[in-house]
Amino acid sequence: MKAEIISIGTELLLGHIVNTNAAFLSERLAGLGIDVYYQTTVGDNPLRLTKAIKEALKRSDIVIMSGGLGPTVDDVTIETLAKLAGKRLVLNKIILNDLKAYFKMKKVAFPEETIRQAYIPADTKWIRNMVGTAPGLIFEVKDKVIIALPGPPREMEPMFDKDVRAYLKKKIGASCSSFITRTIKIAGSAESQVNRIVMDLLEMKPPTTVGIYAKLGEVTLKIMSKYPDESRARAETARIEKIIRGRLGSSIFACDGETLESVVAKLLTSKGMTIAVAESCTGGLISNRITNVSGSSACFVMGLVAYANSIKEKLLGVKGDLIKKHGAVSEEVAQAMALGMRKLAGTDIAIGVTGIAGPTGGTKSKPVGLVYIALSSKNKTIVRECRFKGSREEIKHQASQVALDLVRKNV
Amino acid sequence: MKAEIISIGTELLLGHIVNTNAAFLSERLAGLGIDVYYQTTVGDNPLRLTKAIKEALKRSDIVIMSGGLGPTVDDVTIETLAKLAGKRLVLNKIILNDLKAYFKMKKVAFPEETIRQAYIPADTKWIRNMVGTAPGLIFEVKDKVIIALPGPPREMEPMFDKDVRAYLKKKIGASCSSFITRTIKIAGSAESQVNRIVMDLLEMKPPTTVGIYAKLGEVTLKIMSKYPDESRARAETARIEKIIRGRLGSSIFACDGETLESVVAKLLTSKGMTIAVAESCTGGLISNRITNVSGSSACFVMGLVAYANSIKEKLLGVKGDLIKKHGAVSEEVAQAMALGMRKLAGTDIAIGVTGIAGPTGGTKSKPVGLVYIALSSKNKTIVRECRFKGSREEIKHQASQVALDLVRKNV
Repeated sequence: MKAEIISIGTELLLGHIVNTNAAFLSERLAGLGIDVYYQTTVGDNPLRLTKAIKEALKRSDIVIMSGGLGPTVDDVTIETLAKLAGKRLVLNKIILNDLKAYFKMKKVAFPEETIRQAYIPADTKWIRNMVGTAPGLIFEVKDKVIIALPGPPREMEPMFDKDVRAYLKKKIGASCSSFITRTIKIAGSAESQVNRIVMDLLEMKPPTTVGIYAKLGEVTLKIMSKYPDESRARAETARIEKIIRGRLGSSIFACDGETLESVVAKLLTSKGMTIAVAESCTGGLISNRITNVSGSSACFVMGLVAYANSIKEKLLGVKGDLIKKHGAVSEEVAQAMALGMRKLAGTDIAIGVTGIAGPTGGTKSKPVGLVYIALSSKNKTIVRECRFKGSREEIKHQASQVALDLVRKNV
Repeated sequence: MKAEIISIGTELLLGHIVNTNAAFLSERLAGLGIDVYYQTTVGDNPLRLTKAIKEALKRSDIVIMSGGLGPTVDDVTIETLAKLAGKRLVLNKIILNDLKAYFKMKKVAFPEETIRQAYIPADTKWIRNMVGTAPGLIFEVKDKVIIALPGPPREMEPMFDKDVRAYLKKKIGASCSSFITRTIKIAGSAESQVNRIVMDLLEMKPPTTVGIYAKLGEVTLKIMSKYPDESRARAETARIEKIIRGRLGSSIFACDGETLESVVAKLLTSKGMTIAVAESCTGGLISNRITNVSGSSACFVMGLVAYANSIKEKLLGVKGDLIKKHGAVSEEVAQAMALGMRKLAGTDIAIGVTGIAGPTGGTKSKPVGLVYIALSSKNKTIVRECRFKGSREEIKHQASQVALDLVRKNV
């Protein structure tokens, strides 16, 4: 079974937005054992869109489109599809009611032009949009299928996972071979180090392969195995994972959809422990990441963004003399922040972070990217000195990564 | 002059990485006044790649490819291009010396397979890679041109900006027209509302057009003007901007690269005012956004993530009775948090945010997405009740957007 992806939007061709939909859809299709050989992007132009759809139907069994379903005259996907299928547009009352309910809930007057989104080609399957206004469409053309989804990822992604996935699973049925993937996330090691450790695995050939990908402060290994028999694919994936775990041990912090913050929140909660975070240069990022985890209120008590030195003194009890002697960016102040935070919040552990996120404010002895990260618990205090490279946000992110990993390894 | 982009890599078709190259190249080409009508992605497969190149050459004057130039047998771009052009591969000694110098500098033994990267088609222009190993290639085929660039963005981007841009500028020469864009960002209005207000502008035809884009909690209008004469393009862009400003007024918060947080930080700093932020459901996101702005320490004094009610009481002085009577998620508590924060930090203004970010914790009367956002200043206290939809992170983002916009409008 072959699929291809058509992304629609002049904003993509102008480079105004990055096409995350193509990656999302490709990844999901691979997970269903469906091969994707082409991704195409065209503008909101009926002629070129028609050509692209026709070309895709020649090559593939399934065409998944995203974009161009909005309420404005620029959005041409529906008209183009209707014309191609020789169907007229009819008003769908259920969709119209959904649209009205949507704007009522938003306490916004129903915008006249939105009614366009309730017109869909006659006798066409449609998918309810739980987040926005544009419904999705499923066209069955002989033995082929065209699926049109909204462009905004926050509408498209849940629509795929909730409805399209089930539809495709049913459609491909027995012809489906199983594609099992496993993502293994590693912190605290550079890509080249990990590369050296798993070199032989990276050279494996299908049906089971391993890929390496580096993000800021994180290296990912992806195991992929494709067999007609699902249990065989699972067994092969598990076998390789075991080898990787044997070599990389505790530097592996998470798998698949887990994040460092979700692992940390789960770990703390399972141990009945609480945490508080005192941040200077990371400016609230660590608190923000932990509180992105649903249920984090079970372990996260408070965060303090102590940007001004006076706040470090007043609320965290960091001595003014200490700041004067060692500077606000120092091992000593990071430790005092962590300790003061733990006392103020009454938590089991606390983090203190101070550093220079840049791009200005660096000196020769204390350059941009210098960050001290301390952890205080009942039994110990640990400090790490880090020297990061990159933009202000990249330095903040790397510091938050090290801080969270420090918690993971010390609770 | 028309160009199109071919991205090469099986990892793109598997959705393991997001294609930022296509966006980067499209944006750069638009800036040169070159139209892009198609972006195509294919795997490292000689047959499909050949087809894609042939198809692209039929439709466009310039084909820019990225990816598949690595040293492994999986990388087929060079062979495919050589075959297509009927040229044989020859060893280029300058490239070989570059490669040897590269690994010497890295203090790594020269990997045997890397020598492949020094073989390029006979009589072909090549571009030095200043960051990695794969050189870029420029094929001139009659009046058309194919440019092959490495896949990693950190190698591709500087190569484009340093060499390809100049090459293309020379090539398009007098036919080159100026493309001026202006991005206008709007908060506090739905896409459909903005759409209604600027409907006539959205229907404008080239050389000057206006596009509308919606992100979470933000609507963007993009003016694009393309004229042979740069000053004409600038004047047209400015004329349309003036019309848009006349209609949308203060709901416009920023232009081009500015963000809501950068505008807020600049505004506060220019007025010599200070701010502190007390967050419950947003969990540090507002502080994080403000502190992403370089120089924000001039206005940002502190942030408090008061997740536990005990912290709201102890540090912000929110009365326990108030929480008991109205609930932690209430207008009253948001106000008390803002007021308490302002007193504790001694700032000119303070923000208090409390709500239910979900996905759990909602009730019938207080559903997920209900957020109260308060601003306290010397003269007034304002509260907004908001009902957001979306995931936990989306609700947090929308709340931070409203909070920052509240500051922008009230200082």
